Amino acid sequence: MPPSAEPVSRRDRPAKPPLSRRSILDAALALIRERGVEAVTLRDVAAAVQTGPASLYAYFAHRDELLEHALDEVYGSVRLVGVGDVADGDWRAALAATIVRTIDALESYPGIGVVALGTTPTHPGALRLAEHELALLEAGGVPDADAALAIDLIAQFAAVTAVERTVRRRSGSGADAPGADAAALGEHADADRFPRVRRLVPALTGPDERRRRDFSIGVIIAGLEATTRA
Amino acid sequence: MPPSAEPVSRRDRPAKPPLSRRSILDAALALIRERGVEAVTLRDVAAAVQTGPASLYAYFAHRDELLEHALDEVYGSVRLVGVGDVADGDWRAALAATIVRTIDALESYPGIGVVALGTTPTHPGALRLAEHELALLEAGGVPDADAALAIDLIAQFAAVTAVERTVRRRSGSGADAPGADAAALGEHADADRFPRVRRLVPALTGPDERRRRDFSIGVIIAGLEATTRA
Repeated sequence: MPPSAEPVSRRDRPAKPPLSRRSILDAALALIRERGVEAVTLRDVAAAVQTGPASLYAYFAHRDELLEHALDEVYGSVRLVGVGDVADGDWRAALAATIVRTIDALESYPGIGVVALGTTPTHPGALRLAEHELALLEAGGVPDADAALAIDLIAQFAAVTAVERTVRRRSGSGADAPGADAAALGEHADADRFPRVRRLVPALTGPDERRRRDFSIGVIIAGLEATTRA
Repeated sequence: MPPSAEPVSRRDRPAKPPLSRRSILDAALALIRERGVEAVTLRDVAAAVQTGPASLYAYFAHRDELLEHALDEVYGSVRLVGVGDVADGDWRAALAATIVRTIDALESYPGIGVVALGTTPTHPGALRLAEHELALLEAGGVPDADAALAIDLIAQFAAVTAVERTVRRRSGSGADAPGADAAALGEHADADRFPRVRRLVPALTGPDERRRRDFSIGVIIAGLEATTRA
């Protein structure tokens, strides 16, 4: 023992950052971005903010509640595209770009889109996005009742598209391996039973994720536009 | 020991039904229908066909492969609606009805829609459905390249809609509790920040699952119809 060894004062240790909803959500989002939502437990989040799982319950009642709020932070981070941000002030272009940014934001947190499925959003990030989309649909002349239902369809589409991209990345299938898909489909699509599938193998398997996404967004927006003529 | 006790001949036991891909898939589907896909393990399926998990591997390499084929059986069971089955031979009505039947079929096997997300279908049940939808889109004059992409959008929509319904049923939220949703949304949607959301609370939370589904199908089909005018 060296002489005059003093006990280390607790005050010399670096102070833990104070626990808050904000710090817990930030830690959860960082873990989700890194590992994907399925691999993140409350225990992991607690460890990241240097506390025990029991302390988290004062802030979030259970894992699902924490994930719902994490999802809402992601919605809240989407940069909204308004009619002033696009050529000719076209509401359709602004809505399409907003949907693309929503998918991109969700995709940065692998699997978080799953949290959106089957829930009714009531948190501020989702409401901000809904308000923006309702304003664009209003600018396009889409009737209120249709616009209200469109919000759901758009949220569902963005969430599932982000989830599908996560699954594809993980399995290495789909758009990352169009050649393999074409070969598999060509092998299985008997020309007598499935003549159209057979003929369209290149069109079914060729387009990449971006092209598919843009086609689907175009179909949804054109379909919404049709409600203005009904 | 009673006199003349004879050993029980194995031949007197009821014979196990022979193991086959068919019997394994039937057992898996019955379990999924009862418990939902998440709760079904390979061990459960093996027990249902009176064998061990190891014996199943001769038929399906892993759980995901078994589930993919189970999903394809469900696709294969969808009763297709052709132009001859609807008023005025309207391809749009036939396509809408086919999509509704796809959702209903998937929904009977809770969670099986998840298996469809992010995969490229190459099994005969999915190809049969794709061939039918391609024929309807051809009848509607949708260009081949658009029709090929539409098949994906329709499959994605049917799968996610079935998954969302499963989640809603389980949590008791959503369409089963529109009053609770309206109250939650009304409470959170500040009229200054989210005036349109606030004004549209009844339109956002009122419509039931069927109305939402039919609206979305109508938007998709109207959007596809618009491709014929491009």
